[in-house]
Amino acid sequence: MSVRNFLRFYLSSNREMRQAIKNIFGFYPGNIFLYKQAFRHKSASLNHKSGSRINNERLEYLGDAVLGVVVADYLFRRYPFENEGFLTEMRSKIVSRSSLNKLSNKLGLKNFMHFANADVSQMKSVGGDAFEAFVGALYLDKGYHFTRKIIIKRIVEVHFDLDQLVQSEISYKSKIIEWAQKSRKEYRFQVLSEKTIKNRKQFRVAVFIEDKMLAEAFDYTIKGAENLSAEKAWNVLSEV
Amino acid sequence: MSVRNFLRFYLSSNREMRQAIKNIFGFYPGNIFLYKQAFRHKSASLNHKSGSRINNERLEYLGDAVLGVVVADYLFRRYPFENEGFLTEMRSKIVSRSSLNKLSNKLGLKNFMHFANADVSQMKSVGGDAFEAFVGALYLDKGYHFTRKIIIKRIVEVHFDLDQLVQSEISYKSKIIEWAQKSRKEYRFQVLSEKTIKNRKQFRVAVFIEDKMLAEAFDYTIKGAENLSAEKAWNVLSEV
Repeated sequence: MSVRNFLRFYLSSNREMRQAIKNIFGFYPGNIFLYKQAFRHKSASLNHKSGSRINNERLEYLGDAVLGVVVADYLFRRYPFENEGFLTEMRSKIVSRSSLNKLSNKLGLKNFMHFANADVSQMKSVGGDAFEAFVGALYLDKGYHFTRKIIIKRIVEVHFDLDQLVQSEISYKSKIIEWAQKSRKEYRFQVLSEKTIKNRKQFRVAVFIEDKMLAEAFDYTIKGAENLSAEKAWNVLSEV
Repeated sequence: MSVRNFLRFYLSSNREMRQAIKNIFGFYPGNIFLYKQAFRHKSASLNHKSGSRINNERLEYLGDAVLGVVVADYLFRRYPFENEGFLTEMRSKIVSRSSLNKLSNKLGLKNFMHFANADVSQMKSVGGDAFEAFVGALYLDKGYHFTRKIIIKRIVEVHFDLDQLVQSEISYKSKIIEWAQKSRKEYRFQVLSEKTIKNRKQFRVAVFIEDKMLAEAFDYTIKGAENLSAEKAWNVLSEV
């Protein structure tokens, strides 16, 4: 490729990302390189002359904190008479890994990402990580107030139904999954047996972490038994 | 007390707090009521007509997030070539409960606090909680940029020696203590036995959580054995 063609390709890919960010989030990025870094998974790290590796992990660390304060602030003002237990729980419903993964899929952020290979792109948490890294890039690029406005107007108020979130039970299954992903442990929910009692099927489900059974539970649906067993397992994890 | 005397007393106590905040943090508060709330421990809650209780817990929730992002941002810029593991660890050294409790004692924040009684004021974490609540009040009063400036110029750069923090080992003992305080569990480190081997004393120390022994370790100093046993206990806690 000639230098001119390379430049043309390079600039057009930048232009594409600028336009995509405008379409999704409603603003044109200033420093596009920050956003490019936000969408670079660690599997596709570049090497910096300092010896450090360039990928989105540092931006994710920053964005996680920025997202935390913006959502904390928003809920603080929106619910002036609720206590901090309520606020903390609502916040974790919004910024939980599973919630951010879903959000990221909805926004189609994976389309911009650089991975080492397709397998990596299938890992569940890359979407949420990329969204956090994007928030970190936005904060560095445009500052706190702008970031806050974008997160509230284009994310929280558009993609989250707070009244419904207030009602929603905490899913212990997703808590377990989130914990396992964070701690990089293998987990599985397994139907151990089913039997029919008075014409109703009953399922016995167990939660395994790294092949060790943490808890089991019975219910008339697999989903119910999963969540009950997850709740027991969660209590075990929180106990000691 | 006549209304006039009450007002005089009330205003003078406000003036005192305004001056104290100026002396400690270098700025005059705008809305003094936010700061008064920040220094109201839940044991001395006031009742609001909505049925909610007025104390510093909501501000602590907010301030914790604000402090998190300010310190995250500061470290991000100060260490451009370090990875997110380093940044995360440094941040938790700064904003850990034990670190903030120490800071709060140094600043003398307990002097302003309202408690139900003196016993409560002896609880270790009230200092760190009050500092976080103060940050929440400052953020609501003066906004993000001002808060960031105060935290960096008057707290981080004055009260923390980052070069020394980089060197400092994570104290597993304080991790265990912090975890126990957060989870409201009783804990104790206990010397189970000592024996003399080749003229050197050796100590056997165990960590108990709610009277259950989690781990034990041997060392030639009590402090060493404490930290070793705490490290083992920490691994137990993090394992499953």
